[in-house]
Amino acid sequence: MLAVVIMAGGRGERFWPESRLNRPKQFLSLTGSQPMLEQTVERVLPLAPWERVYVVTAAAYEGLVRHTLPHLPTDNLLLEPVGKDTAPCIGWAAQHIAQTWGPDTVLAVLPADHSIQDAPELCRLLSAAVERAHQSSELITLGIQPDRPETGYGYIEYGELNAVVQGRMCYKVKRFVEKPTSQRAQEFLAAGGFLWNSGMFVWRADAILQAIQQHLPEIAAGLRRIQPVSQDGGESLALEYRRLPAISIDYGVMEKASNVCVFPCDISWDDVGSWFALERVLPADEHGNVVVGDHIGVRTGSSVIIGHAGRLIATLGVQDLIVVDAGDVVVVCPKSEAHNIRDLVAELRNKGRQELL
Amino acid sequence: MLAVVIMAGGRGERFWPESRLNRPKQFLSLTGSQPMLEQTVERVLPLAPWERVYVVTAAAYEGLVRHTLPHLPTDNLLLEPVGKDTAPCIGWAAQHIAQTWGPDTVLAVLPADHSIQDAPELCRLLSAAVERAHQSSELITLGIQPDRPETGYGYIEYGELNAVVQGRMCYKVKRFVEKPTSQRAQEFLAAGGFLWNSGMFVWRADAILQAIQQHLPEIAAGLRRIQPVSQDGGESLALEYRRLPAISIDYGVMEKASNVCVFPCDISWDDVGSWFALERVLPADEHGNVVVGDHIGVRTGSSVIIGHAGRLIATLGVQDLIVVDAGDVVVVCPKSEAHNIRDLVAELRNKGRQELL
Repeated sequence: MLAVVIMAGGRGERFWPESRLNRPKQFLSLTGSQPMLEQTVERVLPLAPWERVYVVTAAAYEGLVRHTLPHLPTDNLLLEPVGKDTAPCIGWAAQHIAQTWGPDTVLAVLPADHSIQDAPELCRLLSAAVERAHQSSELITLGIQPDRPETGYGYIEYGELNAVVQGRMCYKVKRFVEKPTSQRAQEFLAAGGFLWNSGMFVWRADAILQAIQQHLPEIAAGLRRIQPVSQDGGESLALEYRRLPAISIDYGVMEKASNVCVFPCDISWDDVGSWFALERVLPADEHGNVVVGDHIGVRTGSSVIIGHAGRLIATLGVQDLIVVDAGDVVVVCPKSEAHNIRDLVAELRNKGRQELL
Repeated sequence: MLAVVIMAGGRGERFWPESRLNRPKQFLSLTGSQPMLEQTVERVLPLAPWERVYVVTAAAYEGLVRHTLPHLPTDNLLLEPVGKDTAPCIGWAAQHIAQTWGPDTVLAVLPADHSIQDAPELCRLLSAAVERAHQSSELITLGIQPDRPETGYGYIEYGELNAVVQGRMCYKVKRFVEKPTSQRAQEFLAAGGFLWNSGMFVWRADAILQAIQQHLPEIAAGLRRIQPVSQDGGESLALEYRRLPAISIDYGVMEKASNVCVFPCDISWDDVGSWFALERVLPADEHGNVVVGDHIGVRTGSSVIIGHAGRLIATLGVQDLIVVDAGDVVVVCPKSEAHNIRDLVAELRNKGRQELL
């Protein structure tokens, strides 16, 4: 049996000013006509019914998730009292689902705010990974075939073939590598045998809980003290969750566990990590400009222009520029600075401009 | 007796999108809290009363001028049926004023949309020029002492001393030079003896009408056929003005006349020819940014940022950039392209976006 766990707690500051504290990236329709969270769920509905779709998010986003996913069963929205990175969040969801559907339920853990253009292929790969997870207690991850020496992603180096499932290769993971320098990324690409770490995981509930017990015993102990919200009204959750250390599942478990394997994927994946990334996931015009909204350009190329209803953005003699009009804020930065957009958010915070965060 | 003639017919497309066809540059408060036209008049009110202040503009701007200058006497607004560059406009005003105040009235002809920071010094220089004009039929121009090898202005080369009036030097003009290349502009600056052509003139009404008769007889003849609007309701004006050739006073008269002299001026003058020019006439912050409105910048320098009420402009990692938010249009261009802003206007026209022109 498969349950899908969508991780939707991110703040998405790198999409400021479209994303705000009260409306982060996963609720925006950056890559299409639907919010990214909705796209994420729709991609995998062929694999699991709504009863076994779970969303983990921050308590503050309850209303946004319910509005975005009206079909999500009430009890399937897991609200973290406080953000603690991915390990506690995944452990809590696994424990909740094991109690509901049994410990041998397989979980597909998916970030809510990535772009995947080949949804059918994603489903085929997840189906293979789910079959493998049923047969073993392996920790399975999906790795993306790199097509450029990207320095913004972590990498997974894989080794020998582990299994072939439904015609898909599953390899043993040799190691996880943090975001590399440009030179190392080029070496990875040239060497082969490296994949991007997509943050998508497949495993049995008991397998990940066992791995958390082994590698993060403090978190495992804390999670065991959390009663279902239906039983104590969230009292133990509020108390225990705050005490958990904040740590990612990658750093806390995946980099340490020995039974990790990976399915290489070719699914047009992008983590859409900044305004710059829209260039990869949206179609460009003949000058290489990605334009949303009303724009007029003279000698304008390779730029990302995001307009706002009722207002024209006019650009003259610009290259590799990002212009985003969010209604009450207009942001201008070169593409090379897109990953630093949080610096503007920090500057606004310093200046007491909370209304714009 | 002195009459002031303000030329306020420009379309000012280089300040699009703040300037529009129905609200050109001279009506904007780009350089202070008052519209440039109002500043222009206020500078010279110490020299002439409102009864002898005249404004020549396009018929379409009648309402804007009346609103901007409520003290302007009704009959002192001369409305051109159609724009014909400066020679017909100046000739028509001279003829009108000669008929009203007598042919020996001295005219100070001033563009409505320039920045002059030292108004007292301007008045002292105009006073000297007016005295000289009373005594002669010379065509007097004010030339600006250059402080950089500007290629955006025409130059005046002056020769021997003509007169000293009220302690101010007046030189004979050797020649007018059109906008030079960068190399020639540097040579002018190094050589000395060159001034910027400010487009400000002082002459007796009969002197300029005589010069127009000599060098532009077709215009002189046409002007003579124009009756005062008070006599024929503007019928002859509408008929004759359209038939006049469009030509500038510089090209049509000043470059050809032999009795031209110049007063060198040091009055912090700027023609404010583009958004870039605001950098010279408005104060900059410690990063060299000229900012109007709400702006937050990280790693932002030497830029011109013009905001709109109720909206923040946020810039990250930009240098030498111009960002102008005019409410319904946001323009972004490098300073080096500021003089080409008309290309955007042309592109909008091509695309049928008349509502934004």
